[in-house]
Amino acid sequence: MTARAELDALVSRIRPPDDRAANAARERWAGRAMPPGALGRLQDLAVQVAGVTGRCPPDPIRSPAVIVFAGDHGVAADGASAWPSEVTGLMVRAMAAGGAAINALAASAGADVTVVDVGVASDLGDLRGVVGARVRPGTASIARGPAMSSDDAVQAVLAGARIAADRIEAGADLLVGGDMGIGNTTPSSALVAALTGHPDPPALVGRGAGLDDDSLDHKRRIVAAAVDRSAGLDDPIEILAALGGLEIGALAGLHLAAAAARVPVVVDGVIGCAALCVAHALAPDVSRLVIAGHRSVEPAASHALGHLGLEPVLDLDLRLGEGTGACLAVPLVAASVAALGSMADLPA
Amino acid sequence: MTARAELDALVSRIRPPDDRAANAARERWAGRAMPPGALGRLQDLAVQVAGVTGRCPPDPIRSPAVIVFAGDHGVAADGASAWPSEVTGLMVRAMAAGGAAINALAASAGADVTVVDVGVASDLGDLRGVVGARVRPGTASIARGPAMSSDDAVQAVLAGARIAADRIEAGADLLVGGDMGIGNTTPSSALVAALTGHPDPPALVGRGAGLDDDSLDHKRRIVAAAVDRSAGLDDPIEILAALGGLEIGALAGLHLAAAAARVPVVVDGVIGCAALCVAHALAPDVSRLVIAGHRSVEPAASHALGHLGLEPVLDLDLRLGEGTGACLAVPLVAASVAALGSMADLPA
Repeated sequence: MTARAELDALVSRIRPPDDRAANAARERWAGRAMPPGALGRLQDLAVQVAGVTGRCPPDPIRSPAVIVFAGDHGVAADGASAWPSEVTGLMVRAMAAGGAAINALAASAGADVTVVDVGVASDLGDLRGVVGARVRPGTASIARGPAMSSDDAVQAVLAGARIAADRIEAGADLLVGGDMGIGNTTPSSALVAALTGHPDPPALVGRGAGLDDDSLDHKRRIVAAAVDRSAGLDDPIEILAALGGLEIGALAGLHLAAAAARVPVVVDGVIGCAALCVAHALAPDVSRLVIAGHRSVEPAASHALGHLGLEPVLDLDLRLGEGTGACLAVPLVAASVAALGSMADLPA
Repeated sequence: MTARAELDALVSRIRPPDDRAANAARERWAGRAMPPGALGRLQDLAVQVAGVTGRCPPDPIRSPAVIVFAGDHGVAADGASAWPSEVTGLMVRAMAAGGAAINALAASAGADVTVVDVGVASDLGDLRGVVGARVRPGTASIARGPAMSSDDAVQAVLAGARIAADRIEAGADLLVGGDMGIGNTTPSSALVAALTGHPDPPALVGRGAGLDDDSLDHKRRIVAAAVDRSAGLDDPIEILAALGGLEIGALAGLHLAAAAARVPVVVDGVIGCAALCVAHALAPDVSRLVIAGHRSVEPAASHALGHLGLEPVLDLDLRLGEGTGACLAVPLVAASVAALGSMADLPA
C-alpha cells in the first residue's frame, strides 16, 4: 500500500458522531439531581464524549495522554519568529527532562506525555524520552516556496496517526495534541486562511511568542504571499505541503486516528486549530469529534473555531502551545463525564 | 467572650496579601522555560496563591476541601423560587449519600466534601455524613421582614468560620465554599445590591433555578422592597440579618476564617459572591485573598465580582451552586501552582 493509500484508508474509517448516544446523554442529564441545564456548558462535554465513544454514560476518563509533536520551520530564519529555531531543540530537551510547562500541566491533569520528533532541525543525538519519527529536519521557508513535498506531508500525517494509534492501543482514552516548533504560528495562520477561504489572511496573523510591530507586519506579508501562492490548490495534502509544518501535519494525523478509533481529542491553540482544519478538509466529520480546549489569543485560532462551529471550554489568554491549554481543559471533560455517570436521579 | 467579640477577634487577624511573595511569584514566572506571559491568566492563579500563603513558589495544592453549607429561606414560600423548601433537605440527603453534582465534581478534583446544616427547615433525623450546626430551622421571609436576628447572623458566620478552621486544622490547603438552600438567589441578590450600593436592585435578580417571567417579576419586587427596608443599616451583620441567609452567613465565615489562616478560597457563584460581599464589608482585605472560580449566569454574581475587582477563571453558563463551579476551577489553580513550582528555568 502506498503512503497515500494508507492515509485514504484511515480517512475512510471515520464516521460521524453517534447521535443516539449523544441524545441519550442529553436525556440522562435532564434526569440528574439538579435543575435542568444548571451545569450549563459543562454538560456539553459529556454529551460530546458520548457522541464520540458511542457510549452513554461514557466510561470515566482514566488515562488521558498528551502527544507533543516537534518540528522546525524554515520561515523562522526569515524573520517570522521572535526566537531562533535552535530553541525548538532546547525545548524538546526540556520536555524530555520533564521541565516544560506541558510536563507540569499534564502531570497535574493525570496525563502522560509522549514527545515526538517529526521534523526538528537540531541534532538531538539519541535523546531519551523522545520518539524518533523525523520526516525531514525542518521545512523549507514558506517565505520562498513550498514547505515540503506532498510525500513529506503525507508521511508527517501518517507519523502522527501511527503514534496516536499506538497510544490508544496502549489504553489512552482521551488525547491532547501538543506542538513545539519555533515559527509555527506562521504556517498555522497561513493554513487556517487557505483552508477556510479567509478573504484577508494577514488579519489572522498574531504575535506568536512575542513579535514586535515591525516583525508582525513582516510576518503578515509572508503569510499573505504564501497563501496567494497556494491559491488554486484543492487537495488538503497539497495545501499542507505548500504552507505546512511537519508537526502540524502530525497533529492532523492524530485527529484522524483518534476519530477513526472513536477516542475524544481536546484541541489546543492555533497550531491544533490549523491541524484540525487540515484533518477536517480530509474528513469533515473530524471537527464534530473533538473538543476545543481553549481560545488562544492568536486570531487564526478564533477564526478556525468559528469556522468549524466549535466553542472553546477555556478563555485564559494563553499563547504557549505545547498542548498546555488543552491539557487544562482535560479535568473539566473528566468532571463532566464523572458527573453524568455518577449523579443520582432527580428526587421524585 | 461574646459571639460578636469572637467575630471581631477573627476579623482583626486578617491581613492583606503578601506583596513580597506575590511579586516573587511574578518574577519566578518570568524566568520559566517559555515566552514571558505565555500562560496568560493561568499565571495569575499561582501569584494569587503566593500572595495568600506568603510562600513562593507556593506548596503544591494537595488537599482541597469543599464545605457545603445548607439552609432554608422563608421567602421560598412567598413565590421567590421554582422549587419548594423541602428540596433543600432532599438535596442534603443526596449529598450525604454522594449523589449530588458536587460529590462527583469534588471527587474528580481530588477534593473531599463536608456538608453542614446551618439552617435546614426539614427534619434530617440523625442523618450520617452531615455536620449539625443549625442556628435555626430556616430564615423568616424577607418578603415580610428581617430574615433573622443579629445574634442569629453572628452565629451563622461563626459556625462557618469554625468549620472552615477545623478543615484547615485537618490539613485542607485550599477551600471551596458551596451552598444548598432553595430560594437563596433571592437573599443573595438583595445582599449584593445592599452591600455594593447598587442603584437598581431588581436589575441584579436572575431566574435562580428556573423561574418563569411572572415569578421573576415577583422576585424582583421582593428584592427591591427588602433592600429598601434595609436602607440606613451600616453594620454588615445587621444587613445580613435583614436580608440574610444562614448558609450565606456561614460562607462569609468561611471566607473570614480562610483569610485569617492564609488559605486560598475559590469562590463559587452568586451565593458565594454574596457571602464574599458580607465578608468584604467586615474585612476589606478578604476580597484580595480569594480566587473567583466562575461567572454564574446570575446578574448579581457578575456585579459583585466587578465591584470587588475579581475576574473569574471559568465562564460556562453555570447556575447550579453547591460549590460546583468553584470546584471545576480547582484543577486550574493546582496546575498553575504546579507549573510555577516545577518548570525549568528559561534556556540560556
